[in-house]
Amino acid sequence: MSSSNIFIGEIIGTAVLILLGGGVVAAVSLKKSKARGAGWLAITFGWGFAVMTAVYMTSSLSGAHLNPAVTVGIAIKDGTWSNVPYYILGQVLGAMIGAALVVVAYYGQFMAHLNDREIIGDPADKPLIEGSQGGNAGPVLGIFSTGPEIRIAWQNLATEILGTAVLVLAVLTQGLNAEGKGLSTLGALITAFVVVGIGLSLGGPTGYAINPARDLGPRIVHALLPLPNKGGSDWSYAWIPVVGPLAGGALAAGIYDLAFA
Amino acid sequence: MSSSNIFIGEIIGTAVLILLGGGVVAAVSLKKSKARGAGWLAITFGWGFAVMTAVYMTSSLSGAHLNPAVTVGIAIKDGTWSNVPYYILGQVLGAMIGAALVVVAYYGQFMAHLNDREIIGDPADKPLIEGSQGGNAGPVLGIFSTGPEIRIAWQNLATEILGTAVLVLAVLTQGLNAEGKGLSTLGALITAFVVVGIGLSLGGPTGYAINPARDLGPRIVHALLPLPNKGGSDWSYAWIPVVGPLAGGALAAGIYDLAFA
Amino acid sequence: MSSSNIFIGEIIGTAVLILLGGGVVAAVSLKKSKARGAGWLAITFGWGFAVMTAVYMTSSLSGAHLNPAVTVGIAIKDGTWSNVPYYILGQVLGAMIGAALVVVAYYGQFMAHLNDREIIGDPADKPLIEGSQGGNAGPVLGIFSTGPEIRIAWQNLATEILGTAVLVLAVLTQGLNAEGKGLSTLGALITAFVVVGIGLSLGGPTGYAINPARDLGPRIVHALLPLPNKGGSDWSYAWIPVVGPLAGGALAAGIYDLAFA
Amino acid sequence: MSSSNIFIGEIIGTAVLILLGGGVVAAVSLKKSKARGAGWLAITFGWGFAVMTAVYMTSSLSGAHLNPAVTVGIAIKDGTWSNVPYYILGQVLGAMIGAALVVVAYYGQFMAHLNDREIIGDPADKPLIEGSQGGNAGPVLGIFSTGPEIRIAWQNLATEILGTAVLVLAVLTQGLNAEGKGLSTLGALITAFVVVGIGLSLGGPTGYAINPARDLGPRIVHALLPLPNKGGSDWSYAWIPVVGPLAGGALAAGIYDLAFA
Repeated sequence: MSSSNIFIGEIIGTAVLILLGGGVVAAVSLKKSKARGAGWLAITFGWGFAVMTAVYMTSSLSGAHLNPAVTVGIAIKDGTWSNVPYYILGQVLGAMIGAALVVVAYYGQFMAHLNDREIIGDPADKPLIEGSQGGNAGPVLGIFSTGPEIRIAWQNLATEILGTAVLVLAVLTQGLNAEGKGLSTLGALITAFVVVGIGLSLGGPTGYAINPARDLGPRIVHALLPLPNKGGSDWSYAWIPVVGPLAGGALAAGIYDLAFA
Repeated sequence: MSSSNIFIGEIIGTAVLILLGGGVVAAVSLKKSKARGAGWLAITFGWGFAVMTAVYMTSSLSGAHLNPAVTVGIAIKDGTWSNVPYYILGQVLGAMIGAALVVVAYYGQFMAHLNDREIIGDPADKPLIEGSQGGNAGPVLGIFSTGPEIRIAWQNLATEILGTAVLVLAVLTQGLNAEGKGLSTLGALITAFVVVGIGLSLGGPTGYAINPARDLGPRIVHALLPLPNKGGSDWSYAWIPVVGPLAGGALAAGIYDLAFA
Repeated sequence: MSSSNIFIGEIIGTAVLILLGGGVVAAVSLKKSKARGAGWLAITFGWGFAVMTAVYMTSSLSGAHLNPAVTVGIAIKDGTWSNVPYYILGQVLGAMIGAALVVVAYYGQFMAHLNDREIIGDPADKPLIEGSQGGNAGPVLGIFSTGPEIRIAWQNLATEILGTAVLVLAVLTQGLNAEGKGLSTLGALITAFVVVGIGLSLGGPTGYAINPARDLGPRIVHALLPLPNKGGSDWSYAWIPVVGPLAGGALAAGIYDLAFA
Repeated sequence: MSSSNIFIGEIIGTAVLILLGGGVVAAVSLKKSKARGAGWLAITFGWGFAVMTAVYMTSSLSGAHLNPAVTVGIAIKDGTWSNVPYYILGQVLGAMIGAALVVVAYYGQFMAHLNDREIIGDPADKPLIEGSQGGNAGPVLGIFSTGPEIRIAWQNLATEILGTAVLVLAVLTQGLNAEGKGLSTLGALITAFVVVGIGLSLGGPTGYAINPARDLGPRIVHALLPLPNKGGSDWSYAWIPVVGPLAGGALAAGIYDLAFA
């Protein structure tokens, strides 16, 4: 794979991932959405099919990592780091594009939600399923990035490490094929359901970032976009969904080396 | 593939698609249906399995486009337009047949619903999940065609473009096989979940037509059928789920040419 | 396939189908079940995975028809009827065994439910999602067999014909493989989701029997078992889920011959 | 497969199984979890994808039994018992590790839940979907191990036997491949949906242990961990989810020998 194909593939793939993944949170949480109140199962399947669609589309182009934790896990396993910068830069850029497209697709819903006095007037209110609690998080931040239900740094970090380790170990054990075509068609499906499973099982405490680009890129977009009443971007939490997933990816690579290699 | 096989395959496939797709909206929304109130997740999975079933059945006959946006995307990618009229005509006819069959399958439920004074008596009432809001839409139009929660033409158009571009790019990157057998078995499954994903993630604002035939054919049937108290067919909105998906299919073909070809 | 393998395979497969399929209705509807109130989506996925499990297990033994409508559709398509009696007898016997096993697995729940005065005391009450309305149906009949929400014979028949035609056409177009191994592994999965789709989309009016053995066998068991306060077995409706699915299977075979052969 | 690979593979696989499986029950039931109240469908899909992920990861290492009932069923079928101790010891150890990791991932949620007076103060309260009724079960025991809704030993045993027999027969009929690579990729997916199906259909009475290690390992961890207000570990019930699944596995092996071999 050429570095330009990697860069372009990761941008397209991660943009689709976040367009669909951020989209499902918007769909379930914003006013005037047909899916409002569809619940946690809808969110977890939405993110899973977002991963499937993005992996399926771009595996021939870049191998479809779409996640710095996957990139780091594979780099540790294979011992080759030369393409890592292209992967990660493409992933963060793609995630930012995807987050901006969610605002385009749900523009009227964002405006209706953010101009609703019942939602905005009372900061104790919890308008979003994934909205961060007890902090400086705004009413729509949960569409962009994750936040904890209870702020305990070591636990939040541990939950992200565990979730990401499961994801990356599943990716490493399936193997990326030698012809550079990345995950197989069936692998895309399996990976989707692994992600649904992690969301259902380990998403409760922090909203399962399990991907630094998925959290950081959209958080930057949230900070930059001039949305009315958007509130803070909760930067004090932002390091956890970056450090935790990277550590989880490295942990998975270590387990792979010890037990599977 | 012969033009007659294409025409027949697309009629059968799109009829099954709309029988099952329109059927799930009827099931979830009409009075005296066992599935009433089953929610958005039921609707999105119902449409996804409708696509899977129809694609699986007819891929050997016509390649199972079942969607003018897919047909146009493939025509742009391949540069061959000769069969496009057979595809699109078959798709619109099939969609009309499917919509009529939904009325047959749910006849008693339609009558119970449309003769219920609580539903019909109050035009401010919103009996259907996918019912168009703030317009001239009738109480069962959402079973036939889509409508926006908030009427903002550019946003409604943008949402349909984005959703369709994701769908068609997923179809183009999987490739139609050379022997004319259309999507593979596994491809039918993946495509189903791509459609569930688009519904969960981008269906909130407009109800995700992402297919001009799926919206226009049943809307014509709604206009023609002598259902009591059926209300208007919302023709002022009808251009958006035609133009948006076609533009989305063309956009996907353009992205494919630039990044994947 | 030998006729004894067919007979044994269909007994085992249909018993598993009804144990799991009837089981999910018991799980969702009976008092003192952890799944009570899990809803229509749970029922439709439960039946789909029941089909998948049973097909997957027994396809090498009997081809895993598990449904007289499938058997008749295949017999019409292939023109061979010699094994049809073994198939259908095995299916009805298997369905009866499966229905009896549901009562074993949910014995305490059946007793708690049928001895609850609030449920049994008021015949206008509707304790079961699939319970037949406006007739002589008892409070747990819906765990055994299907019943219509609105009794309109032609519509109930039409709904069963349409649902079964979709199912059997999906089976016929995938083909049974020549080595007698029946549906492929992936075919079992696809068939499962076709059944989920039919349930979500066409299950609202009648509860989608789409299989004469699935309805008749358990209805006989309901009539025979000495359950307290069990109510009638609704024999006046019983012909519709037998005749409708058989007609639907024949219709599918006709469409197959005209369009696909 | 070497006995050390079996031992390590089963530890890793069963730890992942219980981390995700116990995790989804914690997610759906504990206070301050984003998934609280997501319902039975979320629990059953969560357990299914837990099985899929764990099987997919470890099938190349140990064949991914992850369940003494599967191990015993295969041993009876094949007549080879030499590796059985490595399998079962690894499974119980892995299940204990997984249960401890659930407490790590949901630490704050456990504390919030167990220190909530409304939950703990009233022993008649039922805080957990899978919480055992009418016994000495504590408020979070259902996250660790299973319990019956109604305590009728023969029925509880019968339900576990039936559910496990379906699972093990599905595993036996798909066959473990000769190269020691265990379940195929697609087999992992099918097995996941078999488990979802069993949960939906037969989980209502007892919470479907269908795996002695899945129940016993976490119950030991519940007894050992110094959680506040944790209540009893319901040891009087503990034999049923051990004996029932083992008997179900043996029953499946018997049916396999009679009908399929």
